[in-house]
Amino acid sequence: MTIRVGIIGQGYVASTLALGLARIKEGEIGLNGIPLQDFTKSYSVNDIEIASSVDVDAAKIGSTLLDVVRTYFPAVNKVYEPLERVRVAPGLHLGSARNLPIKAVGLEEEYGLEDAVHKIVDHWEKSEVDVLINLITTEYTEPPKSFEQLREWVRSGEFKNLPATYAYVYAAAIYAETVKPVAYVNAIPATVARSTAIVKAFEERSSLVLGDDGASGATPLTSDILEYLAERSRVPRGVVQFNIGGNLDFLALLDERRSKAKEKTKSSVVSDVLGFEVPNFIKPTGFVEHLGDKKFVSMHIEYVGFNESVDEIIVNARINDSPALAGLLVDLVRLAKAALDRGLRGTIYEINAFYMKSPGPEGSRSISRIVAYQLLLDWLLRLGELTRVPRYSVHNFIPELKKLYGL
Amino acid sequence: MTIRVGIIGQGYVASTLALGLARIKEGEIGLNGIPLQDFTKSYSVNDIEIASSVDVDAAKIGSTLLDVVRTYFPAVNKVYEPLERVRVAPGLHLGSARNLPIKAVGLEEEYGLEDAVHKIVDHWEKSEVDVLINLITTEYTEPPKSFEQLREWVRSGEFKNLPATYAYVYAAAIYAETVKPVAYVNAIPATVARSTAIVKAFEERSSLVLGDDGASGATPLTSDILEYLAERSRVPRGVVQFNIGGNLDFLALLDERRSKAKEKTKSSVVSDVLGFEVPNFIKPTGFVEHLGDKKFVSMHIEYVGFNESVDEIIVNARINDSPALAGLLVDLVRLAKAALDRGLRGTIYEINAFYMKSPGPEGSRSISRIVAYQLLLDWLLRLGELTRVPRYSVHNFIPELKKLYGL
Amino acid sequence: MTIRVGIIGQGYVASTLALGLARIKEGEIGLNGIPLQDFTKSYSVNDIEIASSVDVDAAKIGSTLLDVVRTYFPAVNKVYEPLERVRVAPGLHLGSARNLPIKAVGLEEEYGLEDAVHKIVDHWEKSEVDVLINLITTEYTEPPKSFEQLREWVRSGEFKNLPATYAYVYAAAIYAETVKPVAYVNAIPATVARSTAIVKAFEERSSLVLGDDGASGATPLTSDILEYLAERSRVPRGVVQFNIGGNLDFLALLDERRSKAKEKTKSSVVSDVLGFEVPNFIKPTGFVEHLGDKKFVSMHIEYVGFNESVDEIIVNARINDSPALAGLLVDLVRLAKAALDRGLRGTIYEINAFYMKSPGPEGSRSISRIVAYQLLLDWLLRLGELTRVPRYSVHNFIPELKKLYGL
Amino acid sequence: MTIRVGIIGQGYVASTLALGLARIKEGEIGLNGIPLQDFTKSYSVNDIEIASSVDVDAAKIGSTLLDVVRTYFPAVNKVYEPLERVRVAPGLHLGSARNLPIKAVGLEEEYGLEDAVHKIVDHWEKSEVDVLINLITTEYTEPPKSFEQLREWVRSGEFKNLPATYAYVYAAAIYAETVKPVAYVNAIPATVARSTAIVKAFEERSSLVLGDDGASGATPLTSDILEYLAERSRVPRGVVQFNIGGNLDFLALLDERRSKAKEKTKSSVVSDVLGFEVPNFIKPTGFVEHLGDKKFVSMHIEYVGFNESVDEIIVNARINDSPALAGLLVDLVRLAKAALDRGLRGTIYEINAFYMKSPGPEGSRSISRIVAYQLLLDWLLRLGELTRVPRYSVHNFIPELKKLYGL
Repeated sequence: MTIRVGIIGQGYVASTLALGLARIKEGEIGLNGIPLQDFTKSYSVNDIEIASSVDVDAAKIGSTLLDVVRTYFPAVNKVYEPLERVRVAPGLHLGSARNLPIKAVGLEEEYGLEDAVHKIVDHWEKSEVDVLINLITTEYTEPPKSFEQLREWVRSGEFKNLPATYAYVYAAAIYAETVKPVAYVNAIPATVARSTAIVKAFEERSSLVLGDDGASGATPLTSDILEYLAERSRVPRGVVQFNIGGNLDFLALLDERRSKAKEKTKSSVVSDVLGFEVPNFIKPTGFVEHLGDKKFVSMHIEYVGFNESVDEIIVNARINDSPALAGLLVDLVRLAKAALDRGLRGTIYEINAFYMKSPGPEGSRSISRIVAYQLLLDWLLRLGELTRVPRYSVHNFIPELKKLYGL
Repeated sequence: MTIRVGIIGQGYVASTLALGLARIKEGEIGLNGIPLQDFTKSYSVNDIEIASSVDVDAAKIGSTLLDVVRTYFPAVNKVYEPLERVRVAPGLHLGSARNLPIKAVGLEEEYGLEDAVHKIVDHWEKSEVDVLINLITTEYTEPPKSFEQLREWVRSGEFKNLPATYAYVYAAAIYAETVKPVAYVNAIPATVARSTAIVKAFEERSSLVLGDDGASGATPLTSDILEYLAERSRVPRGVVQFNIGGNLDFLALLDERRSKAKEKTKSSVVSDVLGFEVPNFIKPTGFVEHLGDKKFVSMHIEYVGFNESVDEIIVNARINDSPALAGLLVDLVRLAKAALDRGLRGTIYEINAFYMKSPGPEGSRSISRIVAYQLLLDWLLRLGELTRVPRYSVHNFIPELKKLYGL
Repeated sequence: MTIRVGIIGQGYVASTLALGLARIKEGEIGLNGIPLQDFTKSYSVNDIEIASSVDVDAAKIGSTLLDVVRTYFPAVNKVYEPLERVRVAPGLHLGSARNLPIKAVGLEEEYGLEDAVHKIVDHWEKSEVDVLINLITTEYTEPPKSFEQLREWVRSGEFKNLPATYAYVYAAAIYAETVKPVAYVNAIPATVARSTAIVKAFEERSSLVLGDDGASGATPLTSDILEYLAERSRVPRGVVQFNIGGNLDFLALLDERRSKAKEKTKSSVVSDVLGFEVPNFIKPTGFVEHLGDKKFVSMHIEYVGFNESVDEIIVNARINDSPALAGLLVDLVRLAKAALDRGLRGTIYEINAFYMKSPGPEGSRSISRIVAYQLLLDWLLRLGELTRVPRYSVHNFIPELKKLYGL
Repeated sequence: MTIRVGIIGQGYVASTLALGLARIKEGEIGLNGIPLQDFTKSYSVNDIEIASSVDVDAAKIGSTLLDVVRTYFPAVNKVYEPLERVRVAPGLHLGSARNLPIKAVGLEEEYGLEDAVHKIVDHWEKSEVDVLINLITTEYTEPPKSFEQLREWVRSGEFKNLPATYAYVYAAAIYAETVKPVAYVNAIPATVARSTAIVKAFEERSSLVLGDDGASGATPLTSDILEYLAERSRVPRGVVQFNIGGNLDFLALLDERRSKAKEKTKSSVVSDVLGFEVPNFIKPTGFVEHLGDKKFVSMHIEYVGFNESVDEIIVNARINDSPALAGLLVDLVRLAKAALDRGLRGTIYEINAFYMKSPGPEGSRSISRIVAYQLLLDWLLRLGELTRVPRYSVHNFIPELKKLYGL
């Protein structure tokens, strides 16, 4: 059975995802970078189909996915059929690409916001999407108090301050009401799965939101290193984490409000994992073009150990930003659909805790990803969704659990 | 209730342990660097008493612990009573300190090995030790096929190739037979808890061995970083880990056989955690005096992710070698005694997996320490040994387990 | 013969300088960190005397240097006589400490600016200063078109936008006119030695300015690494350099205008050394308290070599900010006085090129410091100021020069 | 005019050199990685022609350079004419490739050593070589006391301990005697330019040796970082430099005698640059296949500065080994030939000091490369060999020198 995916924002990540899936289908590459690979029962990687894509970049609208993919990967000279079939449709702008070096257009300019939203819903209906992935440029968002407030924002036409993310959330809810249940995977640092109002609205529509902000880069590693220290009662004096890259996302983060949004999803990890506050500097730090999609990360942690000894850890990394996230999305899409199939609704902490920087629902902690992985395995085991346990799990070792799951 | 500890090898680690415990008792410092701090029920940190210490360094024998501590920490000018009470007794040499810049003497030179062993047992009996910690210089060991073979080695007097570690193991077994059950914590890279013959001998004597090789330095961090990659199906092309330090242990590792022993306990981590082989270079790399006890670690991992992207992680660390291990020993001593009290015997993987580089029993895997920590918490919960769950644990999240443990 | 130094801004650097000099006089420490050590003829390190110090921190004014030093170095419990003799006098504020967590007061508030300047001149006259060191908080400055304009700024009383640095520059010029020639060493990122108007004013008063911005940290190392690459025609694709620290200077740089000033003196190094532009990100990056005076630096350079190979260099450093600059000041004070004695005036590129991030006069290039050092040695040789050649110098190898200087 | 080059050892470096030169001639790539680019008068890069190549790898002998190049660069599918013209001829083995995974054969096995040497000379005569580059696997060498002794070694037939490098040196000397003057560039860690006997033999034959051991990797950078510290009187407590790679050279260095040879040329840099001894660990550290030609370097320096402050620098680098050296060889070949043309003979420190790890003649110091570069520029200026000064040079600034050279 197929999962029909609707992309919102056909940028670097979405293009890497589309290309990677196409190459896997062709047998050119394996399943590296996809956490669960072929360990889930309901859906395999090859079941994923990009069925729709919307964007606001005038240069992309109307192009095939293949055309767009080639702007990011000029060396691709093969024609991948699944990428040729889909054309980028116009999306909602609402200023989400302001200050970026692209010519941005939004359906709302022509039709007004409410009608534009319905055009999006119609487009998704024609594409028969099951799962939506929000991959637009980072936005600063203040979540609505209720779904009614969100509806009011859309209707009032005063959309100057309405984040595009929320307009798409609203559209997804209408889609769920009028077409069929849907999963909205929020891969960017906007507040979606952490908004009780939004989660409730999706719950009421038998739908699902996952989020927020895909945990693709240095932050999950930071969470595991902090856990490593915390488990030994080694106490960080402070944590520094620099990030610099050359893709559009880093350029967008030069904007202060966007940067604030990102900072919020990144720095909570320290006190969440340690259980107490320590001085830290973890924020998007800069843009420099030559780095392209391969960011440079530098981390410094100084900590106090036994007999007041002071140690230091320095981590430097070169990480390809887009494939790191794209690999996670391959899982998220499948887990979202499998959950929908089983009638799960609202949001699911066990998924968010591993895959997201700021896991919803509201008030949830960002825990060490290695611990979160154990939670995820447990959740999958209980669902009967695993074909086999992919790695050492607490469940392999704890007799009660082994019995419970027949391991 | 008190735990009476017998030190074997009063070097940097043992001296840091002794000093740190004394300073904690005085309220000068807190519990940093001790993984379980005050979360265990049976024994608190203050219950630990260094009751005996043996060594082969002629310059140390007869000195008080305080005198020895001061050779490592010249700034210590306070008189700590618990350190003044204990004097270093002569130990078994058997060539274990060969090529090192100390004047080494062994009881076996005067009395022959078998009688020397009995002198050690007598000394421990007088000191009423509950737990022994093996902290002698790294040794290359080929484990005995059976306890009888070990007995034969000791009796034959042909002790040229008998590692001192095994002579002490034998002494501990005799102590267990004739005095009371004992725990032998093997903190060095010799094969003890991974020897089925030795574990069985201790089991038969209602005693316990824990080991092998305290996981104090870069190796546990490496295991967690590898787990971080593995959980995302990011495939390392290779792993490099350099280590250089300036303490006696690094000097000793210039000796090729000792170095082999260390390499064995360190490099298994890669294939154990990943589940497959990758090229790696993880071995003791050098000695340079100015670094003293604060080693320099450098690690490089290159890995392949989604869409065949290639990323890199580089870790550099400055780690105080001795306090890192000493902090773990504070837990090991307490867990060992608590286990003995409950009649547990042989060895305990749940303890070894977190605290040891090469966890026994024979054939066990070296897993990610963050996963191992969950195992440890589970084991402690089942034992009723935790006063409260010290950190986020899978048990806090999994309903079945919460019910089981009343969380 | 003594050099009488007037400090402007008794912060961390000035206090480290004062303490270091006092300890050297006592024979407690050697000459580490002082580039020219005892290689200059006219003045030895012990000839330097802190004769005056002005500041705007109400908590410091009236205190002895010893009191102030102890706020930075609480462990100092010895009474150093030279530090007890001098008391911090009130300085000119002009908003230079705005937004910093100190209670700042300025003489101008009580007396008006012009009279306040004369009070400063009087204070210096009484202290008989030969060399002034500007060590106030980083300021953004737009240099005056002429000395007359500077005079007008001071006289008009509209001092809202007059940087304190320039008020002190003006005071120094008045001092030079009315008392005796003076050297003004500008160790902060304000434009002083790069202002033609200021240099000319000092030249006309037989005086000297040196500057701008002491090259104490990562920037000189960056310049040498870039030179290393450039000499091999290895072409950087881009340069990233992060800096984070926890002292007042890093806190001050959170202010955008101050940060701009710093960025200007730091990033010119790339194109200056390479001779062409490459993308770069070199700017003050953050403040995090626990780092204190020991900043963390992270640098990344990716470059193209023979046969289009692509290599990478990553540098991480922990650098004590204040002593690094204080060591340079010990030389600058002596070189400035030796130059004054010989009637040199205006500014001296050969000194600035080695010791300063942005060497004056206006339009000068920031060259590799190792090359600059050769220039400096040559200048010293021509002056007859070296007691011996401290290190390998081109002059030792080039026959013409050897003859010229009698090497 | 053409420079005809004879390669000794057609491995990775020689193949990179051959390919790079061919691509430059085709205009495919520029002059990155060639220090002097087009700044020399007598010869441009395009004047270099690979005229001969000898090797002992049975799989290479008889192949064209193009074939060999493709084993290292499988992606090369273009036919480069200069690479097709030359075939690898059989060389002298003398055990130089022992323990390496190749089938090695030597002319001496068939003809005896003395006749084999003459076969090599004949081959070079036919190829009309001007400059020879020694690029065989690293060898441990004890230099001859005199040229007569070297002759004796070759004649005696007891060639078990005769390094292949010296057999080629002997052949080159015979070539110089009987054909024409020649330059022998020793790019490996054997003692050649540092052997007074060898330099003298070449001097007497109007010939030239340059060496030893091309300064292509981390060592020249280390020398500049040490100079950076030394010029500020910052005193290293110790220096650590690890190197690990996956090419044949790193594999060869597992052999202890070869490793010794390398260690000698690398570690002298510390005391040479600083002028005093500090503890250091600088040696070839390991082999791990996945790294291929792109080695991983890790360096740690801890140093003491003003007021006894302690700082640290950590450098990590990924460096493509072969192109780094190949780029230097492009200069060395041209400088060697230009020197020969002018009748210079023996060896030339000004060249060696910049391009070689252990510069000859015997007893020379390894100085900071940035200082050495100034020497090199001076030497070139005096020779009238520069078309223009390629970078900032002391000569641009020092009036006496500007006059001298008409700058």
